[in-house]
Amino acid sequence: MNFCSSCGHPVQVRIPSDDNRERHVCTHCGTVHYQNPKMVVGSIPLWDEHEAGKVLLCRRAIEPRHGYWTLPAGFMENNETTAEAAERETLEEAGARIELQELYSMMNVPHVHQVHMFYRARLLDLDFLAGTESLEVKLFSEAEVPWDEIAFPTVSHTLKFFFDDLAAHRNGQSFGLRSMDIRRKIQD
Amino acid sequence: MNFCSSCGHPVQVRIPSDDNRERHVCTHCGTVHYQNPKMVVGSIPLWDEHEAGKVLLCRRAIEPRHGYWTLPAGFMENNETTAEAAERETLEEAGARIELQELYSMMNVPHVHQVHMFYRARLLDLDFLAGTESLEVKLFSEAEVPWDEIAFPTVSHTLKFFFDDLAAHRNGQSFGLRSMDIRRKIQD
Repeated sequence: MNFCSSCGHPVQVRIPSDDNRERHVCTHCGTVHYQNPKMVVGSIPLWDEHEAGKVLLCRRAIEPRHGYWTLPAGFMENNETTAEAAERETLEEAGARIELQELYSMMNVPHVHQVHMFYRARLLDLDFLAGTESLEVKLFSEAEVPWDEIAFPTVSHTLKFFFDDLAAHRNGQSFGLRSMDIRRKIQD
Repeated sequence: MNFCSSCGHPVQVRIPSDDNRERHVCTHCGTVHYQNPKMVVGSIPLWDEHEAGKVLLCRRAIEPRHGYWTLPAGFMENNETTAEAAERETLEEAGARIELQELYSMMNVPHVHQVHMFYRARLLDLDFLAGTESLEVKLFSEAEVPWDEIAFPTVSHTLKFFFDDLAAHRNGQSFGLRSMDIRRKIQD
């Protein structure tokens, strides 16, 4: 950030008088430009819950992590809820209709200023189709998941937790919220 | 937003070619300036869990809602986790040391582009003290809560859910995650 988005004058990095950390401040109009973490929200679309238990993954057609597999997810937009964001991203990236269930995982990724959230979801039909940001979309059982080709640690951890909890759920356990902090950079 | 924070030229509102909604776009350097919801994170500091069960509230010394009561909470910062944000805000606004527990409520407030999250927490001692953004800080049992003077709907709903669940918890129920969407404006 070099210029004030309000008046166009150069900004400086300084600690405002009523604050305790450095911000981008406009010395012309006085606007303080706060920068805050963003939410990435998606779903875990499950098919055939009582049999094989397959999850819908998308192979990314965009950077970062082009060609790697991910759960359908993306940046939450203004004027929508986390649940609406999860449904929208699932439709946009995987062309998939879901019945959204509870929030399942919340993963903090502080070094990239993001919080990732995934909802459990029931995939309603098999008429899914890769959106413009996906190369292909496919169902995977736990044994079939390409674990070495998952795009993001938040996704691989969510999937591992989920398949564990799905097995426990078949034995009568209820799903809870899984939380985790991921502080390492992705190694290609 | 009137000017590009990167190059200082005027921005225009238009739909980028690879997008489906209007963004602030710089026609000079091409930067797309995305705007996304912010997270407000705090805690529900509980004292004397097994007796009266009192919760620590702060009376706001700042706008909006100056003079109204709230749970300690504030905007999550870059480079921290949601749990770190909850602990930091509780210390800054209430001077209170807590043992943070699970995420308890997640409230979407889409018309102000915010998601509010509150963690359950155990208040560790009674040496709390109003921070610069609080007029006073005080413990309240459920019967003592000033329900008509709560600053935000996300806080009053969280408190109502919490005291209900605290009563159920004493009868052996476990706490779950409470979620809710709040779409109405605050009436003074």
